[in-house]
Amino acid sequence: MTAQGTFITFEGIDGSGKSTQARMLVDRLRDEGREVLLTREPGGSPGAEEIRRLVLEGDPDRWSAETELLLFTAARRDHLERTIEPALAAGKTVICDRFADSTRMYQGLSRGDLRAKVDVLHNLMIGREPNLTVLIDMNPETGLTRALGRQGTEERFEDFGPDLQRRIRAGFLDLARAYPDRFRVIVGGRDRESVAEDVHRAVSSALP
Amino acid sequence: MTAQGTFITFEGIDGSGKSTQARMLVDRLRDEGREVLLTREPGGSPGAEEIRRLVLEGDPDRWSAETELLLFTAARRDHLERTIEPALAAGKTVICDRFADSTRMYQGLSRGDLRAKVDVLHNLMIGREPNLTVLIDMNPETGLTRALGRQGTEERFEDFGPDLQRRIRAGFLDLARAYPDRFRVIVGGRDRESVAEDVHRAVSSALP
Repeated sequence: MTAQGTFITFEGIDGSGKSTQARMLVDRLRDEGREVLLTREPGGSPGAEEIRRLVLEGDPDRWSAETELLLFTAARRDHLERTIEPALAAGKTVICDRFADSTRMYQGLSRGDLRAKVDVLHNLMIGREPNLTVLIDMNPETGLTRALGRQGTEERFEDFGPDLQRRIRAGFLDLARAYPDRFRVIVGGRDRESVAEDVHRAVSSALP
Repeated sequence: MTAQGTFITFEGIDGSGKSTQARMLVDRLRDEGREVLLTREPGGSPGAEEIRRLVLEGDPDRWSAETELLLFTAARRDHLERTIEPALAAGKTVICDRFADSTRMYQGLSRGDLRAKVDVLHNLMIGREPNLTVLIDMNPETGLTRALGRQGTEERFEDFGPDLQRRIRAGFLDLARAYPDRFRVIVGGRDRESVAEDVHRAVSSALP
């Protein structure tokens, strides 16, 4: 029987460089001969990508905070069942760009005060937590400038001012303090190779 | 300030005639001069109709029972916020063809044993119960024959055998016994005018 794989998530404010760092980590782990699956949220499975389009395209106010939370949770459940769990069962390392902690911050803090509901809903319908979460921490002003520089058709996550980004940064750091066994906080905003080195060191110690 | 309107739902197995009865009741209440909104689930608002299409079209196995439950709950939340609550706030009578009791039966009984989760999720994200629920009760064999006679592109609800229909009928009757103040059980399978007469009598006594 294959040993269960390791589930690693990347979190951080927009523009923190977490997606770049996730890709760099995947390349390095594959060079080391590991079987790695890179995925992302919202999305990550055909059904979840359809739900992602339903949520992120069109008028940002078309869904209430509660409906959006339910849709993201539906997408996460599909992603977990169809992509993440099968890869972990096959012994792969799964690297996911955003997961439930992003919902705790973006839906839990930014749109109404849904944080308590976010947690109950997660425990009820998702249940799974990552083995390790890499939080790329950085100055929100720098992050926002970087995020705004690459705007696409899906504006939702970037459509927040600096004040909210500061609250979300603080919220991520609170989570890291609350779950020190799961979180590794990496200082972002430096040259990407230095950050990647720190990420690799933090992750390597957690891999079998 | 306008008095809050009355929220009435119709429930029953497929082919029970509940949609016909809902329409007949609406006509009669309007003839009496009442402001009535007729709506249905899944769907009933532009966003909820989009979610309905996502769930009901395509391969029936594309969503797990849990993901389907989350999508239906997202649709219900949108329908409630955008269609039902505004109409009730304006003092209208709202007649809805299927609501949360259908989820308690179809998702709660038919696909895995999700009944407990269905109830927790409803209390967490929906909360609203109808003032009155009309249950059109009838023999499942007759209902199934009638339902199969009008198959369309959305086969999901009709795609159940007689055994499941029997369990769902029994489940609806159990709900009616558990919530006698809210439920009115009407014997279906008779000529539609006789059924409509009984429905109208049951509803009239509950309207202001």
